[in-house]
Amino acid sequence: MFQQPDSIRYELPPWIADFVKDVGVVADLEARMDFVVDAARRNVSEKTGGPFAAAAFEAESGRLISLGVNLVPTQRSSLLHAEIVAIAIAQDVLGTYDLGGEGMVAHELVCSTEPCAMCLGAIPWSGVRRVVTGARDCDAREVGFDEGPKVDDWRGALEERGIAVVTDVRREEAAAVLQAYARGGGDIYNARCGGWGT
Amino acid sequence: MFQQPDSIRYELPPWIADFVKDVGVVADLEARMDFVVDAARRNVSEKTGGPFAAAAFEAESGRLISLGVNLVPTQRSSLLHAEIVAIAIAQDVLGTYDLGGEGMVAHELVCSTEPCAMCLGAIPWSGVRRVVTGARDCDAREVGFDEGPKVDDWRGALEERGIAVVTDVRREEAAAVLQAYARGGGDIYNARCGGWGT
Repeated sequence: MFQQPDSIRYELPPWIADFVKDVGVVADLEARMDFVVDAARRNVSEKTGGPFAAAAFEAESGRLISLGVNLVPTQRSSLLHAEIVAIAIAQDVLGTYDLGGEGMVAHELVCSTEPCAMCLGAIPWSGVRRVVTGARDCDAREVGFDEGPKVDDWRGALEERGIAVVTDVRREEAAAVLQAYARGGGDIYNARCGGWGT
Repeated sequence: MFQQPDSIRYELPPWIADFVKDVGVVADLEARMDFVVDAARRNVSEKTGGPFAAAAFEAESGRLISLGVNLVPTQRSSLLHAEIVAIAIAQDVLGTYDLGGEGMVAHELVCSTEPCAMCLGAIPWSGVRRVVTGARDCDAREVGFDEGPKVDDWRGALEERGIAVVTDVRREEAAAVLQAYARGGGDIYNARCGGWGT
């Protein structure tokens, strides 16, 4: 008799609860990115995943909704890029598959690195109205990560769908986390030009 | 004090256990697609999600590894396209983030409809070596679904990464499920050209 699990479950690293507990409203984009880049750095030092983090905020107020980090190796799922984790938790917390639904305030996703093809595709479905990025995709590629089959003008593709894009926020600091990870011998799985990307 | 859930959990519809229980090895691609298209149809009749299903098989033997269906509206997550669910369960069952890892047999993903941008991006990271599709993306667009910002030559993009692509398997039968869903007044959420896609 064929059986498969009747649920899908992923655990977040225990350090996250403490990391977020004093965070309420984060006023400006630079401070939001600092928080996200710190989380990416912490994810590496705790050995809980790749050097990537993302967080959902209320765009105007800066209220934190969720923090995600890359959990691919530790939760053994190629799906668990930081952006996916942040979107999953935000939708769970707010009880909706559309973070841009009627009557809701605008939400944004702040990502330590520009999204890979999968995360780029996930963004329009999530309902966020703005994406804010730190390191560029070329910074990720430079240390060996793959961004996947992504449309050339990814910013334009989001903007066409009414999603604003702000890039290069704390780019140097965010890219430094990628570089330190690579220098430290962090796992950059890249067989068949596939692997677990950003 | 800010708190967020310490895990992410999604429930599969209860009908799936019974639906898969007598399925072992499914010999040819047409029969694998029939199984997947039946699951898509059942997902609609059970009102557990959109008209999409996907399954992971061992490519050569045809042994079923996992069945996923679209759970976006019922599990309130824009991420839960059928392909994502099938990949998540397969990686859980096999205990790895890479279904194409060393020493493993080749796995394939059989999808009732060609992948949207998010699922296309997820495929290279998953480790599957072959993708088999039923309805075309234009069949999904025709009834109002959005495929997202997807590279024009998506087959070529997968093939370049060593992933074989077989399209149009039972296309008519698969497209008929989409058309019946639309005729039946099924929810095709599409605000801002975003929404929950395929």
